[in-house]
Amino acid sequence: MSNRKQEKLRFQLLSAQLELARSEDRAVVVLVTGHAGTGKGQLINRLNRWLENRLTEVQALVPSEEDRRRPYWWRYWTRLPARGRISIFVHGWAGDALFGGAARRLGKGSFADRLKEIASFEADLRAADITLVKLWLDIDADIQGQHLAKLEADPETRWQVTEEKWQRHSQHAVIQQLGKQLRKATENEDSPWLCLDASPDHDLLTPVVEHMVAAMQGTEKATIARPVGRVPTTPAMPQLADLAGHDSAIDKAEYCERMACAQARLAELARRAVWRGIPVVVVFEGHDAAGKGGSIHRLTSALDARTYRVCSIAAPSEQEHLYPWQWRFWQHLPKDGSVTVFDRSWYGRVLVERVESLIDEPEWQLGYQQILDFEDQLLRHGTVLVKLFLAIDRDVQLKRFKARAVTPHKQHKLTEEDWRNRARWDDYQLAIDDMLAATHRSAAPWSLIDANDKRRARLAVLHEVTVKLVERLQVN
Amino acid sequence: MSNRKQEKLRFQLLSAQLELARSEDRAVVVLVTGHAGTGKGQLINRLNRWLENRLTEVQALVPSEEDRRRPYWWRYWTRLPARGRISIFVHGWAGDALFGGAARRLGKGSFADRLKEIASFEADLRAADITLVKLWLDIDADIQGQHLAKLEADPETRWQVTEEKWQRHSQHAVIQQLGKQLRKATENEDSPWLCLDASPDHDLLTPVVEHMVAAMQGTEKATIARPVGRVPTTPAMPQLADLAGHDSAIDKAEYCERMACAQARLAELARRAVWRGIPVVVVFEGHDAAGKGGSIHRLTSALDARTYRVCSIAAPSEQEHLYPWQWRFWQHLPKDGSVTVFDRSWYGRVLVERVESLIDEPEWQLGYQQILDFEDQLLRHGTVLVKLFLAIDRDVQLKRFKARAVTPHKQHKLTEEDWRNRARWDDYQLAIDDMLAATHRSAAPWSLIDANDKRRARLAVLHEVTVKLVERLQVN
Repeated sequence: MSNRKQEKLRFQLLSAQLELARSEDRAVVVLVTGHAGTGKGQLINRLNRWLENRLTEVQALVPSEEDRRRPYWWRYWTRLPARGRISIFVHGWAGDALFGGAARRLGKGSFADRLKEIASFEADLRAADITLVKLWLDIDADIQGQHLAKLEADPETRWQVTEEKWQRHSQHAVIQQLGKQLRKATENEDSPWLCLDASPDHDLLTPVVEHMVAAMQGTEKATIARPVGRVPTTPAMPQLADLAGHDSAIDKAEYCERMACAQARLAELARRAVWRGIPVVVVFEGHDAAGKGGSIHRLTSALDARTYRVCSIAAPSEQEHLYPWQWRFWQHLPKDGSVTVFDRSWYGRVLVERVESLIDEPEWQLGYQQILDFEDQLLRHGTVLVKLFLAIDRDVQLKRFKARAVTPHKQHKLTEEDWRNRARWDDYQLAIDDMLAATHRSAAPWSLIDANDKRRARLAVLHEVTVKLVERLQVN
Repeated sequence: MSNRKQEKLRFQLLSAQLELARSEDRAVVVLVTGHAGTGKGQLINRLNRWLENRLTEVQALVPSEEDRRRPYWWRYWTRLPARGRISIFVHGWAGDALFGGAARRLGKGSFADRLKEIASFEADLRAADITLVKLWLDIDADIQGQHLAKLEADPETRWQVTEEKWQRHSQHAVIQQLGKQLRKATENEDSPWLCLDASPDHDLLTPVVEHMVAAMQGTEKATIARPVGRVPTTPAMPQLADLAGHDSAIDKAEYCERMACAQARLAELARRAVWRGIPVVVVFEGHDAAGKGGSIHRLTSALDARTYRVCSIAAPSEQEHLYPWQWRFWQHLPKDGSVTVFDRSWYGRVLVERVESLIDEPEWQLGYQQILDFEDQLLRHGTVLVKLFLAIDRDVQLKRFKARAVTPHKQHKLTEEDWRNRARWDDYQLAIDDMLAATHRSAAPWSLIDANDKRRARLAVLHEVTVKLVERLQVN
């Protein structure tokens, strides 16, 4: 390629990047994978020289202890670029599948499952305005072998040839085979694979940059094309309407005694879970003034402060808005052997964001499936997931709002927004019903808690968490 | 305490917290330490109930793998609250010193050193508008023993009594002794220790909350009281003025050959450093258009992408502004066995922030000492620290600016700001001279690089990094 043409292409890439940074309307993820000895390092160095480095990140991941103690996809979700930025992933999730498959760390069935997960992850990226550029660097096995030998013979390039590369050379055929399956399973119109012959002296930079520029310029807001609404196997669950007919109130002395018992039991179970390295996620959703905060206090009082975090979810910050909506929840997942309590959660996607029209219907409709996928990741990693919905009646809420208004230390909890939400009670109720119907399933059921009586509700919360821990720990 | 008084105190605390959140003018750190069996957990639970949880964080730290692979203070710097927020540290750095000392993990000398580090860390917090509330919970050894025995006898509280607590009971005397030394060494007018008798049934909440409210209301902007300008042992170094008389230019063929050699050598050394778990920090400072970016590319081309990060430092974001100025640099420190290249760095504190009057003189004057302290932490952890200053002459800068203006892919690099900075050349020169004088020392010297010739400069950069690695790895 002539120098002038190169300069022009370089300028196009940079312009596209600067426009990306200015508009902050999408992020770009470049995934570079394929065979060893195909000059990935050199390609990325050259890309780096053409790109503005302050807006670019290279992610060449060696999973850390922190990564391994979280669900598999945590390492990628938490490393996504913000809108306006470009991240180049070296091998990334594709490499994990390929080399895991080749080394039989991933069995045949797991490999196939992993491909499905990849397709679903990439669909999430597209739905979140992330332009995905996927590069496969190909090379003939013989040429690969000769090239590695030549690099190794030269003292100035010998350092580039690691044992790992020779190993991958010996596995060329199986990597080629798995690569085909991978590309087939994850091929998509909006993010097609670009396969390049990366024999020595082939120019990779030009076709890669041309492809990137086209992808960055050509992208419109992706249409949400994923099938919506796989029907979950729904165990029987009470409807909110069934909550009527409460038990009589419980007196204070009895409550205190039962609470102390429940906390002692929970403390014991939680300690075992921590000791066994089990991660625990407790989700609190519910009506305003249903008593989530008070219940959380009773729950966490039984936990060792070193082992839990309470994560309060409000509207996303400006920074968080630059990422896919799930991003901030991935950030907060507990590592193995710890507990995260979510005071409101990812369910906001199909509750407040739907009711307040913060997103369009196709987005919140897609949200159900995205939530199921997200929770699947937690469950697959072995997380104990407890989902609690604290429900109160409309008139109980009114009483509590009024009480808040006259209690000095509670006044700040009562805002205009609460009254606005209350005015939309029926809309919320519809969204709640839809949410329960779509996301209640045997693997991750909702516990619906009648919270009209605070004491009973708190005991019920501890009971539900206890039951889930007993199930998982298989103790009495 | 009467219920009414309690309600009033609770409201005061909450009001102070809401005011803190509204104004975002400071953060609050509460450090709770002392003997076992003093009800710290209960105290914190109660505080949590009174505070607004969305603005509060409890930090009860078990150091993770990620923590241990960074300089000691990383775990605390990265967990500081943003302005507007409150963090409660359970034992925290005080506990590390106390229990490390009691278990003789910290020898006598190390304990004394640690106390000095604590005093310096706490001074940094005060200088960064963090209100520090320090609580020591005291208990008589006999009463402690009886109390633990009583808790253990009751099935409902037995879970609270861990082995660790009995062990600390057996070490009551030494903990008491070390605690006295700790409090003496870290006592400060603006953040005095509050020592409380925490015998069973003593009310801790009231005095603690009264103390917190007073601290939160009473704080004005701390005067910077730390001694400035400890004189470093300065090895001989060239002044910028001495740069004149450059070697003749180096031709391209020779440059390419020497660069390939240098990269091969560096690659080998870097791989050894990674393998031995040594963290490496390379700092690039220099005039605008001195060629930092190009040098960084040549450097990183010799590194395995999985082992390094380039960290470009621009003006702090809005979010970063909510933390002490050093916070963002702590965030980016490499873990053991990896390399971080800083394209500009913490030296901005005494360069751009000084010259552009973004901070007052006492702040940048204090900056020198803070920088030395920060780098001491890196060195103490075993980090290889390479500090490079790329210097060019005024007329060379002008030539490069003009060249940038006519090269399409370089135009965006040339901004109004560059011309403004150039107009203040002499002010910057003064700041650079002061910086070099104050922060050049044997343990962490500056390498001053004549960057008027790009090729020579790049070779010199690789040479300097190579020399530092050779020194550290003790290889030939």
